[in-house]
Amino acid sequence: MQHAAPPAQSALAGKLKQGNLMAAQCPSRKILNHVTSQWGVLILIVLRQDTHRFSELRRTIGGVSERMLAQTLKNLESDGLVRRTAYPVVPPHTEYALTPLGTEVAEKVQDLTDWIEQSLPTIAGQWAEETSL
Amino acid sequence: MQHAAPPAQSALAGKLKQGNLMAAQCPSRKILNHVTSQWGVLILIVLRQDTHRFSELRRTIGGVSERMLAQTLKNLESDGLVRRTAYPVVPPHTEYALTPLGTEVAEKVQDLTDWIEQSLPTIAGQWAEETSL
Repeated sequence: MQHAAPPAQSALAGKLKQGNLMAAQCPSRKILNHVTSQWGVLILIVLRQDTHRFSELRRTIGGVSERMLAQTLKNLESDGLVRRTAYPVVPPHTEYALTPLGTEVAEKVQDLTDWIEQSLPTIAGQWAEETSL
Repeated sequence: MQHAAPPAQSALAGKLKQGNLMAAQCPSRKILNHVTSQWGVLILIVLRQDTHRFSELRRTIGGVSERMLAQTLKNLESDGLVRRTAYPVVPPHTEYALTPLGTEVAEKVQDLTDWIEQSLPTIAGQWAEETSL
């Protein structure tokens, strides 16, 4: 005789199938914050081009501090989006690259940042209009 | 006799053609912050479905405070992405809707949030793995 799963368990399995960003307590909010933080966005689009060392990322992304870069890389690593490889050489050599999952999300992020860069003149026009009102 | 534009002016015009998010001083960073702030993202995807009143947005987006909702709507309005319409009735009735420009960016944002919601189970698996190491 077969038993159906208890209702409580099915509800939990259902919840884990997909996140719901509108719910304040949904853990998908944590991913949203990692991926769409200013430094998260910029790291993803730089790593989309190529693997980079910490110092290269720091130079490429204008205005990022060492502390914020390290923290954001750590968050993206914990989500399985970035892979950190440390080579046992002197001086130490550490490289950061996107994982396949990171490559997927970086593509979506790049679509958004391309739009922002291209729309800057239009949006700057709105700012000018507002100032002149 | 025709004069070429002075070099300083051409450089400025060139700069205004497109933003560069890697540059700390580029105004495109301001748009990035408005559009990818947690509340900015969630407002854009809710308004993508339909026009909404302030109180409806507040109810739909879990955890947002009145102050943060008002501030984020104001930022998106100043960028020309959201349109606020106040109807002169008693009690006051104010509606928020996306502009055509806002609809464009909301589409990119929704691609990203759909990915995040769908990838939650995979990423939560990474968190579990990390905890068990």
